[in-house]
Amino acid sequence: MKEKIHIIKIGGSLIDDTELLDQFLDQFSGIKGKKILVHGGGKLATTLADKLGIEQKMVNGRRITDKDTLDIVSMVYAGSINKNIVAKLQQKKCKAIGFSGADANLIKAKKREHAEIDFGFVGDIEKKSINKKLISKLMKLELVPVFSAITHDKKGNLFNTNADTIASVIAQALSAKYDVELLYCFDKEGVLEDVDNPQSLIKTISEEEFSNLKNEGKLHKGILPKLENALSAVKNNVNKVFLIKETQLKNHIENHHEGTEIC
Amino acid sequence: MKEKIHIIKIGGSLIDDTELLDQFLDQFSGIKGKKILVHGGGKLATTLADKLGIEQKMVNGRRITDKDTLDIVSMVYAGSINKNIVAKLQQKKCKAIGFSGADANLIKAKKREHAEIDFGFVGDIEKKSINKKLISKLMKLELVPVFSAITHDKKGNLFNTNADTIASVIAQALSAKYDVELLYCFDKEGVLEDVDNPQSLIKTISEEEFSNLKNEGKLHKGILPKLENALSAVKNNVNKVFLIKETQLKNHIENHHEGTEIC
Repeated sequence: MKEKIHIIKIGGSLIDDTELLDQFLDQFSGIKGKKILVHGGGKLATTLADKLGIEQKMVNGRRITDKDTLDIVSMVYAGSINKNIVAKLQQKKCKAIGFSGADANLIKAKKREHAEIDFGFVGDIEKKSINKKLISKLMKLELVPVFSAITHDKKGNLFNTNADTIASVIAQALSAKYDVELLYCFDKEGVLEDVDNPQSLIKTISEEEFSNLKNEGKLHKGILPKLENALSAVKNNVNKVFLIKETQLKNHIENHHEGTEIC
Repeated sequence: MKEKIHIIKIGGSLIDDTELLDQFLDQFSGIKGKKILVHGGGKLATTLADKLGIEQKMVNGRRITDKDTLDIVSMVYAGSINKNIVAKLQQKKCKAIGFSGADANLIKAKKREHAEIDFGFVGDIEKKSINKKLISKLMKLELVPVFSAITHDKKGNLFNTNADTIASVIAQALSAKYDVELLYCFDKEGVLEDVDNPQSLIKTISEEEFSNLKNEGKLHKGILPKLENALSAVKNNVNKVFLIKETQLKNHIENHHEGTEIC
């Protein structure tokens, strides 16, 4: 039997709320066994860019990571947010160790290629991008990896990479060795049929159901990339994948079913 | 016989010069055997603070690290500078892994206590602050630690800590197990009797000579803390300690004597 590991992704709604983040990190610290935290950014990067007069560049409605923006997100994600989360986890006796993908070449990305748009310093990753052997070795030292959404190309460049994707791809890479449960934590109860009604929770979503919901326009835009990453994990041998409310982590781990299961 | 390790400190003069830094990292990558890099900040933190309108607070001529300044230095040192150095070392096939002291509780500091001045988020460290067992284990994985000058207190706070001191104290802590050579790399040939004359290099400085030079007012202010940290290392069983010019690292390693030896 494979050893169990929890891979947990958190995003801006939690990171921007000091008190809620602290409660979450309490719950995360309490999880027994191996675990990995992946965090996105929050408002801090946008606030900082605004203050410095760095404009968000958009091409055909897509966000571009130019050099100035890369500098901002490297600082904010890998410096400020990552180190503050690690320091708080250490306070809670969780042996956290913070990483960007450049550290120990843990996540090697490729610059995003696109026929029409140059996305700038945006890195795409796949299963083989993950240095799973070293991640395993670090976890054998009882360390708890905390990943920021910064990767590199081993050519000296840092990249901005989607945190939902990083969580999914790490989960896929580790599934050969571990019994992986991937949890996307966010500010909703799970996937909701009516985004304003927590009672409208969809308990399970299969690939077919996802296609139907998508085609019927029943999924709001924000949830789509999360669901696509979740489905990709399921299709690549990740044992369990859930979208749950951030405050429900402890309940979920203890009772094994909160939020929406992707299957 | 103990295994050899090089612990190398670099500062702002190198970090602010992209080309010089790249040449240095080439030389650093070429060092065989175990090695650790410790880096300070550079102008970036000050530039960023200026742009954001965060004033440098001074009390009795001493710099204070308030919360805003801590946020800046955490971002810049542990985020921007650390991750860019790590990415560049990875490009040069050096298995770099970047750290703040919070990561894996590698450096646990105490808030600086002072009868009259509250220095803010400034952390002091001593030999026992260093998680030397874990640093050894990480190096056994063939990883090359790269430390930024950010520490923590295991109570959830990050601290600003002098990078010269971090290099010295890591060297002291690892001396029980390793044959440590500590190298302070900076923009001068070593300690100079006349700061404007590279020919006036002092080849060796003992504790007594240091006191004499200091009392005679022959040491310029900038070099004093570096020399004090270097002497502290020598007194605490660090085998070799040198102050050398940044561009001389390779020569020094190959010929075993550049710059000023502290003995």
